[in-house]
Amino acid sequence: GRKVLIVYAHQEPKSLNGSLKRIAVEELSKQGCSVTVSDLYAMQFEPRATRNDIVGCLHDAEEFDYGMEAWEAYKRGSLSSDLVEEQKKVQEADLLIFQFPLYWFSMPAILKGWMDRVLVQGFAHEFPNCYDSGLLKDKLALFSFTTGGSREMYAKGGISGDIRYLLWPMQHGIMHFCGVKVLEPHICFAPEYVSEENRREMLIAWAQRLKTLWNEEPINCSPEWYFK
Amino acid sequence: GRKVLIVYAHQEPKSLNGSLKRIAVEELSKQGCSVTVSDLYAMQFEPRATRNDIVGCLHDAEEFDYGMEAWEAYKRGSLSSDLVEEQKKVQEADLLIFQFPLYWFSMPAILKGWMDRVLVQGFAHEFPNCYDSGLLKDKLALFSFTTGGSREMYAKGGISGDIRYLLWPMQHGIMHFCGVKVLEPHICFAPEYVSEENRREMLIAWAQRLKTLWNEEPINCSPEWYFK
Repeated sequence: GRKVLIVYAHQEPKSLNGSLKRIAVEELSKQGCSVTVSDLYAMQFEPRATRNDIVGCLHDAEEFDYGMEAWEAYKRGSLSSDLVEEQKKVQEADLLIFQFPLYWFSMPAILKGWMDRVLVQGFAHEFPNCYDSGLLKDKLALFSFTTGGSREMYAKGGISGDIRYLLWPMQHGIMHFCGVKVLEPHICFAPEYVSEENRREMLIAWAQRLKTLWNEEPINCSPEWYFK
Repeated sequence: GRKVLIVYAHQEPKSLNGSLKRIAVEELSKQGCSVTVSDLYAMQFEPRATRNDIVGCLHDAEEFDYGMEAWEAYKRGSLSSDLVEEQKKVQEADLLIFQFPLYWFSMPAILKGWMDRVLVQGFAHEFPNCYDSGLLKDKLALFSFTTGGSREMYAKGGISGDIRYLLWPMQHGIMHFCGVKVLEPHICFAPEYVSEENRREMLIAWAQRLKTLWNEEPINCSPEWYFK
């Protein structure tokens, strides 16, 4: 069975994001996948990249350089245990699903902190092992999120621009950089402004998509996909 | 004298980001500006958007909706004191400077958390008051940051794509959405891979730019600027 890690960032289990997460757990488990959830708010996950992430002495205590310290700590096995825990989950996963509400054209800070702190050099990339030869190649990722703005606002020519514009930093800058292949995003537009019936349809559509997810081809993660 | 708020996100005062921040404080003060710094790591600024941001009872305790609760709390004056403090600084500022190292094609989580928590509906925007009629119009913003990748990697056609692609969510999605006009970003490429002499030149270039900053015209924050 395939392994899936869902990194979930919503405060409220009763939210649409909570339901989308629950549906993914149910549907993928039904398929025989083994599913792990990192429920970031429930874990009170720490988003700040600080000296606390390194256990024991620093490589250079004179001038603190987070990226370099985390890399060195990874190599000598002295990253803080919450990071080691997340890295183990990533390492074992065939597919990473990120489930969150879009905050300011991007991820909520708690999820950005997961990216900042978990995907350290040495573990997820190590020059020249980036992009197509990133260390997490052979894994898949899928960004599943809800928006405040409507589909029309996020259309090409709409006031907020094509929704794909804002996917570039997340899909290309993070996932592709680490070698992860990206499936089409799953976007629920403006669930707060639609009917209860429409929200139910959104849940059904997600469950339907998950049924054939493993047959999907990754997107061609190049500027053309985003900005053509 | 004009008022400037520098929102600064680096752990180490001796870093290039620390120097860039210090130079901005010195140069702008010399010009007679009144300069305030929010040093997010030193403040141990909370990046997570949670129920703790609302003092007292919730508007709807049955199903926690952060955006709605923060909006309601803003209206009745019951946002947590750290947010009120930051909002006062924003309200008084003519110019916001964001100084940070680029983490994963975006801001460090601690700075994203500042955006998520401080720029609440009612304070920074309130439909239809968004984009050109956002509530923070007549203010300016400038993103000043360092990168890990080189200028060549962030060129159009380079492996990481035009650096402007990744500015869209920050400059358009956040600042423009709130009505803030955006000055050209200030980017120091790959300071860790250049000579001490080159790093000194980066500091001098920033000081020079600040001398005539108030004469600058904002960019035309539309898709053409980013993706043309």
